[in-house]
Amino acid sequence: MPHIALPEGLPGIRGAMAFRPETAKPLNELVEVLLCGKHTLTAGERELIATYVSYLNDCYYCQTIHGAIAAAHLNGDEDLVKQVKADFQHADISDKLKALLIIAAKVQKGGKHVTAEDVANARAQGATDLEIHDAVLIAAAFCMYNRYVDGLGTTQPRDESMYRERGRDVARKGYISISKTYLPADAAAR
Amino acid sequence: MPHIALPEGLPGIRGAMAFRPETAKPLNELVEVLLCGKHTLTAGERELIATYVSYLNDCYYCQTIHGAIAAAHLNGDEDLVKQVKADFQHADISDKLKALLIIAAKVQKGGKHVTAEDVANARAQGATDLEIHDAVLIAAAFCMYNRYVDGLGTTQPRDESMYRERGRDVARKGYISISKTYLPADAAAR
Repeated sequence: MPHIALPEGLPGIRGAMAFRPETAKPLNELVEVLLCGKHTLTAGERELIATYVSYLNDCYYCQTIHGAIAAAHLNGDEDLVKQVKADFQHADISDKLKALLIIAAKVQKGGKHVTAEDVANARAQGATDLEIHDAVLIAAAFCMYNRYVDGLGTTQPRDESMYRERGRDVARKGYISISKTYLPADAAAR
Repeated sequence: MPHIALPEGLPGIRGAMAFRPETAKPLNELVEVLLCGKHTLTAGERELIATYVSYLNDCYYCQTIHGAIAAAHLNGDEDLVKQVKADFQHADISDKLKALLIIAAKVQKGGKHVTAEDVANARAQGATDLEIHDAVLIAAAFCMYNRYVDGLGTTQPRDESMYRERGRDVARKGYISISKTYLPADAAAR
């Protein structure tokens, strides 16, 4: 049961956002820019970073929904998502993404863990400053979203088909558009 | 030296925000709603939560600037800010704020650390669901801001007077307004 009286029937972050639409607006805008905006990293790659950090933070809701969104972007390849969580160094992803995942994992532990060598390694694999910046901010942002979702004790159904279906919807429409289905119009609007 | 080529002369999060105005916009809006919006907790109390979490995350820039903003809201009482960081249970703050700081410290460790007892204790001290929600989200958000600032290796001058002066400015004008001094107009605008 959630720690506070969240609206019923809205799992994970959706219940928390519906409770407080004023903060939902920037929270949705941030994730939209980071994960859906035009980018040199694919949406699938960025969702894999979000999924991996949520996995490290042991947030069931976030790792499952973002894993589903990642898979939807990656032609339904759920095995790749599982492989990234279990052992990304041996997953079929680029060396650049591996280097960015190393940085993201350091950020998850704390910002000071990121070293000049980690960044030089990402650059050697072709990462740009913007890609490094966004890997750091995606990781940092999911340290927020994960704590928000778990810190309020939100409901997190163990129904994989729900996450799979919603993952496809978010991959198709984006976060701000989808939030209009459960937020007041002025909070969901851009 | 920062890990990526951030604009010079802008310490801490300001350099990171100027580097990526698209994400600066929701980042500023979130902190404005949480820390400056109309609220049953004073701006000083909310800044103390932000300062305490930044202290726990060992982020020099954030704990110093938010400590300065908190002090500016609290009639310049820098000793109270220091006392909250060192031992808030014996600081001259309300029992309600102490109960919210306990929750914030749990969120800093990870969302699952928050217990029903922590929340019941905050309610017994008069905290509302909105206050509990915002304490959780302020703590979660500063786990993001702190990692963002340290994960990019931003410059963090050890010049207390700079923080004190800027703290007074932010307390007077708010985050979005002050961001117009270093962000492009379309990023700083609401």
